[in-house]
Amino acid sequence: MEILITELDVKDIRFPTSLLADGSDAMHTNPDYSCAYVTIKTNKEIEGYGLTFTLGRGTEIVVEACKSMFYLVKGQNANEIFAHFGSFWRKLTSEPQLRWIGPEKGVIHLATAAIINALWDLTDVITEEEAVEMLKVNQKDKEKREEILRKTGYPAYTTQVGWLGYSNDKVKELCTKFLALGFTSFKVKVGQNLTDDIRRCQLVRETIGYKNKLMLDANQIWNINESIEWMKQLAKFEPTWIEEPTSPDDILGHLKIANELRSYSIGIASGEMCANRVMFKQLLQARAIDYCQIDSARIGGINEILAVYLMAKKLGVPVCPHAGGVGLCEMVQHLQMWDFICLSVSTENRVIEYIDQQHEHFEDPVIVQNACYMPPISPGYSTKFNENCIKNYSYPNGEKWRNMYEQGLFHKLSD
Amino acid sequence: MEILITELDVKDIRFPTSLLADGSDAMHTNPDYSCAYVTIKTNKEIEGYGLTFTLGRGTEIVVEACKSMFYLVKGQNANEIFAHFGSFWRKLTSEPQLRWIGPEKGVIHLATAAIINALWDLTDVITEEEAVEMLKVNQKDKEKREEILRKTGYPAYTTQVGWLGYSNDKVKELCTKFLALGFTSFKVKVGQNLTDDIRRCQLVRETIGYKNKLMLDANQIWNINESIEWMKQLAKFEPTWIEEPTSPDDILGHLKIANELRSYSIGIASGEMCANRVMFKQLLQARAIDYCQIDSARIGGINEILAVYLMAKKLGVPVCPHAGGVGLCEMVQHLQMWDFICLSVSTENRVIEYIDQQHEHFEDPVIVQNACYMPPISPGYSTKFNENCIKNYSYPNGEKWRNMYEQGLFHKLSD
Repeated sequence: MEILITELDVKDIRFPTSLLADGSDAMHTNPDYSCAYVTIKTNKEIEGYGLTFTLGRGTEIVVEACKSMFYLVKGQNANEIFAHFGSFWRKLTSEPQLRWIGPEKGVIHLATAAIINALWDLTDVITEEEAVEMLKVNQKDKEKREEILRKTGYPAYTTQVGWLGYSNDKVKELCTKFLALGFTSFKVKVGQNLTDDIRRCQLVRETIGYKNKLMLDANQIWNINESIEWMKQLAKFEPTWIEEPTSPDDILGHLKIANELRSYSIGIASGEMCANRVMFKQLLQARAIDYCQIDSARIGGINEILAVYLMAKKLGVPVCPHAGGVGLCEMVQHLQMWDFICLSVSTENRVIEYIDQQHEHFEDPVIVQNACYMPPISPGYSTKFNENCIKNYSYPNGEKWRNMYEQGLFHKLSD
Repeated sequence: MEILITELDVKDIRFPTSLLADGSDAMHTNPDYSCAYVTIKTNKEIEGYGLTFTLGRGTEIVVEACKSMFYLVKGQNANEIFAHFGSFWRKLTSEPQLRWIGPEKGVIHLATAAIINALWDLTDVITEEEAVEMLKVNQKDKEKREEILRKTGYPAYTTQVGWLGYSNDKVKELCTKFLALGFTSFKVKVGQNLTDDIRRCQLVRETIGYKNKLMLDANQIWNINESIEWMKQLAKFEPTWIEEPTSPDDILGHLKIANELRSYSIGIASGEMCANRVMFKQLLQARAIDYCQIDSARIGGINEILAVYLMAKKLGVPVCPHAGGVGLCEMVQHLQMWDFICLSVSTENRVIEYIDQQHEHFEDPVIVQNACYMPPISPGYSTKFNENCIKNYSYPNGEKWRNMYEQGLFHKLSD
């Protein structure tokens, strides 16, 4: 079946999460969880859906970048792309004029991710025979692991107990709620105020005890010495990791922090803002991180992510994907389950981030049971929005947005 | 005098340089030298002009990014900005929603540069008294160095002899021409074909001899081992440096290359695609580069560039700015002369890149005499385009562009 890509479309979809302080952290104090949402249309019935996660303002820039890249995809034969996916990916990321405004980082790489993700979503058209052939290696063991996933799922952790903007009562209430749901790993945001961090860590530990895991996340707010000194003060709460202590670009800085904090049994986690595979390579090579947090919408789509999984496997660093943003849970579940079935074949020290928001907008949302992601059943990359979502949250003129302007909750910057 | 910023404007300006293969290199095979051009208007007569350099396609994305950032500048008091320029810069680069699509890299940082550059251009409104006060430190020595600059200028090197797309005759002709103009440092592009590189290096060395300096530039095309092996083959031509051997993000990779090539007396130069000060810090700290090539339009404007100059000074690495792209020569001359007068107080191992194209479009173009940049006389950052340029080269509907569509030399992608 020859599949020609006939049309591409991109939409600016935003959710007004800043109204509830959902997702707030030390550096991103009022995010509106959003995405640039790409649809690839073909001469057949099938379509591909891909997205890249954003925080509200700036989505319009990523939308513009997606449009600028469409000419590289429109009119192409999808089968040809899949047959030579590596070189097609390099064609996109090496476009000789566009590459200057990256290269392979920031806006242009986020747009690459949205398009590549949509192309992978199209790949459910690979025939069953082809798929079986590809999976034949270690088939026996794979089936065992698939069975485990089908029965118990893949372990998740929750970030929802500790947003900076939440009150203490809300933190305690949420800890209790997620404990009851079966969660054993909990993440708390830190970095704006040490006294307040201590108080909230205490609160969480009092509720979840010391047998469960506590992770901390500073979202890059510190410099190197601050990271070390601040974390020494929080060491008594026995955090499994400190996430993004400093600039995601500072490999040597992460190494210094890691060397200091390992004697306190605190690991270093980073990756959600790691720009590309070259940066990941160095973080892994230098052993500057203990947990590799790939982001399914920041680096250039699945093609580049697979390279990071392979390096992490080779260098013995567990991958614990970043998720929680729009569509990120939907995407990373595929990647992490693939890793378990085919690559690392282990869930030890591995866990997928989970936040239960915006899932209702997808046709095939994640299913989390007993604090585990259950394997997705439908083909594709699980990022197709339902019609209602498009109608309501398209920015700036979706129905919900127009209502919010009328209520004075938001105003359009551009008007 | 209170100066309020009343309006901002951004234009997409493109020059059809791909028609002549000007600016071609191993990775950027057909650039149309372009820029996003920002004008800041005030309640007074003065305006500020700033730009960020691009290669054609993608300029529209940077333009969109500039527009998205305008709300942070419009209505502000310029005096207040200048009084607290550091914190204003951080406000721009830390905008809690926009920062996600960087942070501090790629499109959003290029846009920051255009705006910050335009703000610095406005700073000619600092009173003479204030300026004198600021320059009083080491005033005596400064005057001596200013005098040197006024008499002989700041040494330049030419990149114009060795674009990949040029024929051998053209290379030889240009070497002879630039020798006659007084140039003593020449840069040649390499990396696509070793046999061809050897032939062209031979040709250049035959014309310029071994007393003049030869620099090589691979524009990131190699991996680490290729860099080392390829450069061993070119070592006999005694290059001063190899520029951008590999990914600008690979700090540890540059270090490995540097360690191997230092025994061949070949230095490592990089920086034109270095994303921000954090990346520069590591390149300098690790001594992964021997020449620091700041780019006046890639990192977030003068504010961040000054931080890099200071680190380079502290760590003893000479700064040799990237230039040649639209407006880059105009901007870096200010920076490098400031460095000579106030900071490094030396021109040893330092030289500014020079290419003589697009200067005619500026109201206050660079003046190069005897292969030296002569100090600019007019206030501001020298990046105001003349009216003709705006009329002719605004993209996509400037007069020259419309002519080229009619002649079939270009077609509009977006139509």
